Amino acid sequence: MTLERWRDITYWPLLAASLLFIVAYSWQVIADLQGTPYLIARVVMGVTWLVFVVDYLVRLSIAKPRGEWFRHHIFDLLVVSVPALRPLRLLRALTLLHVLQRTAGTALRSRIAIYGIGAAAVLIWIAALAVLESERGAPGANIENFGDAVWWAFVTITTVGYGDFYPVTGWGRFVAVLLMIGGVAVVGVVTATLASWVLERAAQGHEDQEPATRAQFRIIAEKIDELRGAPPGSTLADDEGPVPDGPTPRTS
Amino acid sequence: MTLERWRDITYWPLLAASLLFIVAYSWQVIADLQGTPYLIARVVMGVTWLVFVVDYLVRLSIAKPRGEWFRHHIFDLLVVSVPALRPLRLLRALTLLHVLQRTAGTALRSRIAIYGIGAAAVLIWIAALAVLESERGAPGANIENFGDAVWWAFVTITTVGYGDFYPVTGWGRFVAVLLMIGGVAVVGVVTATLASWVLERAAQGHEDQEPATRAQFRIIAEKIDELRGAPPGSTLADDEGPVPDGPTPRTS
Amino acid sequence: MTLERWRDITYWPLLAASLLFIVAYSWQVIADLQGTPYLIARVVMGVTWLVFVVDYLVRLSIAKPRGEWFRHHIFDLLVVSVPALRPLRLLRALTLLHVLQRTAGTALRSRIAIYGIGAAAVLIWIAALAVLESERGAPGANIENFGDAVWWAFVTITTVGYGDFYPVTGWGRFVAVLLMIGGVAVVGVVTATLASWVLERAAQGHEDQEPATRAQFRIIAEKIDELRGAPPGSTLADDEGPVPDGPTPRTS
Amino acid sequence: MTLERWRDITYWPLLAASLLFIVAYSWQVIADLQGTPYLIARVVMGVTWLVFVVDYLVRLSIAKPRGEWFRHHIFDLLVVSVPALRPLRLLRALTLLHVLQRTAGTALRSRIAIYGIGAAAVLIWIAALAVLESERGAPGANIENFGDAVWWAFVTITTVGYGDFYPVTGWGRFVAVLLMIGGVAVVGVVTATLASWVLERAAQGHEDQEPATRAQFRIIAEKIDELRGAPPGSTLADDEGPVPDGPTPRTS
Repeated sequence: MTLERWRDITYWPLLAASLLFIVAYSWQVIADLQGTPYLIARVVMGVTWLVFVVDYLVRLSIAKPRGEWFRHHIFDLLVVSVPALRPLRLLRALTLLHVLQRTAGTALRSRIAIYGIGAAAVLIWIAALAVLESERGAPGANIENFGDAVWWAFVTITTVGYGDFYPVTGWGRFVAVLLMIGGVAVVGVVTATLASWVLERAAQGHEDQEPATRAQFRIIAEKIDELRGAPPGSTLADDEGPVPDGPTPRTS
Repeated sequence: MTLERWRDITYWPLLAASLLFIVAYSWQVIADLQGTPYLIARVVMGVTWLVFVVDYLVRLSIAKPRGEWFRHHIFDLLVVSVPALRPLRLLRALTLLHVLQRTAGTALRSRIAIYGIGAAAVLIWIAALAVLESERGAPGANIENFGDAVWWAFVTITTVGYGDFYPVTGWGRFVAVLLMIGGVAVVGVVTATLASWVLERAAQGHEDQEPATRAQFRIIAEKIDELRGAPPGSTLADDEGPVPDGPTPRTS
Repeated sequence: MTLERWRDITYWPLLAASLLFIVAYSWQVIADLQGTPYLIARVVMGVTWLVFVVDYLVRLSIAKPRGEWFRHHIFDLLVVSVPALRPLRLLRALTLLHVLQRTAGTALRSRIAIYGIGAAAVLIWIAALAVLESERGAPGANIENFGDAVWWAFVTITTVGYGDFYPVTGWGRFVAVLLMIGGVAVVGVVTATLASWVLERAAQGHEDQEPATRAQFRIIAEKIDELRGAPPGSTLADDEGPVPDGPTPRTS
Repeated sequence: MTLERWRDITYWPLLAASLLFIVAYSWQVIADLQGTPYLIARVVMGVTWLVFVVDYLVRLSIAKPRGEWFRHHIFDLLVVSVPALRPLRLLRALTLLHVLQRTAGTALRSRIAIYGIGAAAVLIWIAALAVLESERGAPGANIENFGDAVWWAFVTITTVGYGDFYPVTGWGRFVAVLLMIGGVAVVGVVTATLASWVLERAAQGHEDQEPATRAQFRIIAEKIDELRGAPPGSTLADDEGPVPDGPTPRTS
């Protein structure tokens, strides 16, 4: 059993567990559950937690250089072991969607935009739930219902910060800090994607001034090979040997 | 009748309808109309709404792969069918101005700057109107006149967020969220345009170190063709066949 | 008399007038002058205003396509004709410093950084003065001394916006909007300059993967000329004729 | 004794002095020390201050063009001579970590991210300490304990600025301004690093369209040398003489 095989097998179960978790968590917090419904929601969340624990342990056991895998997955360990971090488990679902693979140019930018909007929406929803759970009933708190919590999350992630609502508990403030960091990252991704588009567009229209391409280089090389009387294909292949012009090493 | 032809025909009528709508909407909200003037403003807005509905239906009927056109114009459908979104109709006017076509370099940046300023101004005006209409008279509201609403819109779109004014109604907060997102986008566009300028300027002055251009490649190719004894023009054209050095595919 | 000659002649007088203006304006606002000192400060500001009016009229009279010059200097006209905009006159002093000319790479970035810091400092100082002048004594105002005004200007230009101080008068809010726009621009310039540096650094260290340079192209061209038996220097110059590899047209 | 040698010798002592300083400063401010413990903390801070003074003086005495070194290290002089700036001494520790040397591409971006997070964390910690020391006990102050001070620092550096806490003393506001500037820089670094990644990714996948590389140039040059009958290696070396294709001069 390899990590890739395990990932393929657990793709849909983990996605389902994530969705089940968020539904149960939303229900518990928004409806302010008490008694039996509260117990039901907690049991559902406990079961989805077990799914993530099992997934973590299996991956740890089949990873080949186990120490290295462990060091690269400290975040996963924190999320499954610290109860307070349980809402972050949903972010794991996002890492299951490998939407950024094998695209470039405008297609890549569209996917980054979609992915960024999705991540921001999940972050706002989770942060609103977590803050509301922490603040509701706390002395001096002003975030008392889910509508206000979502509004507060939007005001925070965009770094507007009116100050009409703000967390006063320690855990509520910790959630707020994660949301602010997410806001800085979202603004950064938006700007970076726009910058990529502007730069590409600004270089167009003066085709003479664009950098010579690798395809053009190959034409030159073939022409020279013809001059030398060598068959273009084979010689070119030999000569090209030392040139790493496939996926460049620095971007791997 | 093609979509292009329809767009040419409806260019000025739609622009006029957009302006008429914004004038009637501004008049209704700023003057807090009652009685007959209110009815007149509503009728004007109703007529401009009909113009947009007709435009949407005609475009839907003449679009060739109709399903695809429908999927790409969900936003248009929302704007014409949900009354609460009617102010967004004005943004449609902006998409009529194809100012970004066929420009590059500094000219492109100037146009992006002008377009960004225009979009921000329209967004601020519409948001101020929509928030004022929603907040005026609501219990606990603090945005009570148009001057305060415009000031609030500026404070929000730049993400400053003093908190001296903020919406308290659900619809007012929805408008505020759209404005905040607009603010993040405006900041992103400004930064991206500046980054494009800085990058281009930073690469200048050391002409030796700039990337070799496609025009330079063509000179090399011609030189080699001369060596081979072939007429430069025709052979070059043949050999260049496989090189897509016009508008690059990744940017289309 | 050409515009260039006039600019050289008036360089130091205009800089002196700008400094004199800001000193008199600062003195009037910070000390809240009354009586004779107030009159003195107003006279000094009036004289510096005359200097700018004369400069504007002379430039208008000697500009060759006068209509074009007029359209490109609407901002100058506003600053000299609208009394309320007089503090913006100092920004004219900044345009006198042509620090961005003929630099590239890290030197350019250093100059952009210095220029950006200077512009932000001038903007904060002017905005604090203008807001204090407008707010002091207004009903409901909370910016009542220069220290608070400078603090407010910093909180605004960085888009933090605590809301402990905010303008309540129309003119004070207009100044605040200009300051917020300046803040967005300053953040954009900082980010763009950093992005330029990161991009250049990220491309280094794998010299094999950097784009081929124009200098390298010239070596190839010379080698081929040698093969053809032509003297490298002269032939190269002839052949290079059509290649615009000096300052590129798209950046002019 | 050269500057490099001195830097190697003092690397660990200065790092230890920085850490000792921050521990003593944190202890003094957080525990609000009085009496003997206060004296102990002040003595420790005084000793670490002496270490920095000695380091500054030694470096000044062995620097070769001493005037130039002095002009480039005004910041160091301020930090060791103005008592109020003592917390900034810790930033000197960061400049000891030359983590950005000799990396490129994704490795560089990872290091920038780590370095940026580290700098932001140090800045937040120091600013919270300095603001708390200045605000505690001041009339009208609302930052009264370390938890609130850290929360305020996060709200400020991300430019959210709720306004639930804000400094009211002059020195507290000065610290806040430094923190805001740090916030703008942190947002800028995040955006720049993301932009670098997006741009590199957007150019991938269409290898034909990427700029021709310097390695490719060398292959062409060798092919032509073979045509001319010259030994490729040596001739190439001669001909390449004038091409500065190592680390480019504009980035030094």
